[in-house]
Amino acid sequence: MNRGLLLVISGPSGAGKGTVCEAYKTNCGNHVWNSVSMTTRAPRAGEVEGESYYFVTREEFQRKIENDEFLEFAEVYGNFYGTPRAEVEKKLAAGSDVILEIDIQGALNVQENTTEGIFIFILPPSMNELKKRIIGRGSETPESLLTRFKSAYNEINYVSKYNYAITNHTVDQAYSDLMCIVRAERCRVTRVTNEILTLKEEEL
Amino acid sequence: MNRGLLLVISGPSGAGKGTVCEAYKTNCGNHVWNSVSMTTRAPRAGEVEGESYYFVTREEFQRKIENDEFLEFAEVYGNFYGTPRAEVEKKLAAGSDVILEIDIQGALNVQENTTEGIFIFILPPSMNELKKRIIGRGSETPESLLTRFKSAYNEINYVSKYNYAITNHTVDQAYSDLMCIVRAERCRVTRVTNEILTLKEEEL
Repeated sequence: MNRGLLLVISGPSGAGKGTVCEAYKTNCGNHVWNSVSMTTRAPRAGEVEGESYYFVTREEFQRKIENDEFLEFAEVYGNFYGTPRAEVEKKLAAGSDVILEIDIQGALNVQENTTEGIFIFILPPSMNELKKRIIGRGSETPESLLTRFKSAYNEINYVSKYNYAITNHTVDQAYSDLMCIVRAERCRVTRVTNEILTLKEEEL
Repeated sequence: MNRGLLLVISGPSGAGKGTVCEAYKTNCGNHVWNSVSMTTRAPRAGEVEGESYYFVTREEFQRKIENDEFLEFAEVYGNFYGTPRAEVEKKLAAGSDVILEIDIQGALNVQENTTEGIFIFILPPSMNELKKRIIGRGSETPESLLTRFKSAYNEINYVSKYNYAITNHTVDQAYSDLMCIVRAERCRVTRVTNEILTLKEEEL
């Protein structure tokens, strides 16, 4: 059994990383697992424990920080959010790929806390298209739209910290790119050592 | 225009690298170019200048060695064989991918002579399957068969010098793996700098 791949996926909001990951999971459901974050914030209506988040107390979260139980964590507006390390490790060891759909700061923390991880950045085809997509959601005021754009511009500077960049022209193309990255990474020489050893051990 | 990819493909004879490259070229004909080697050996019946090889004199070859005109070269049984650098460079600069289907020694020389190159090793699914495929060709004596096997065993040790290993279970699967590697490599952050710069320069 080969170890699964840790796929760390980020991108500015509106670039479509959620949709791309969703399409990927729909097509590769058995082999991929979406990491569930842990948070200290209160559950919102409709959120399900263990699916949306793991909801814990501030004390519990801080104890876990002290025990180094997070692959990454951050405090945002007074609430903690983090990726529990143990579950990710268990899935990877069982050969399942794990998707971490997290923000850039989280991704950079993962880079510091583990030697594995394939870092993928989802880009919009153009900033104008990004604008259209965010406006299309209809949930932004002109001010919050401007804030989002500035933030998207700044975020794109971090693409150089990632291994791959997928431009999301269409969901189908972006999803296929992601599938190819996974397939190519499985062919990396460092990951096919089992197969090579088997070949070398074979009697003729 | 993004620069093309330099695909260096090796593998023991019988692993099927020729067939895999052929399938790839058939499907991606416009974007990929098969490098033509230069040699000092005499043309054989049916060989075409500029397709099978470029045939040159020993003096011409040696002059080119002195001028550093080869990406790699070797002397085998008294004849020189080499990959002319200029043509490869021209194709890459024009955005075409270039396939170098060469032996391991050649591939290692390319690694020394350039900073680019995606090194792909084609593996047989099993040594028994490799045996069957070589016997199937019907061109081997028992002695030459044994020599080929020993050589295949030794060659597999060099897989660690490559970036990717494709196990050739079927031509379709191996060809798809190769296609995915190319597609994934095109998504490498170091190769999408043009797209990122365009995004950053866009007026809103």
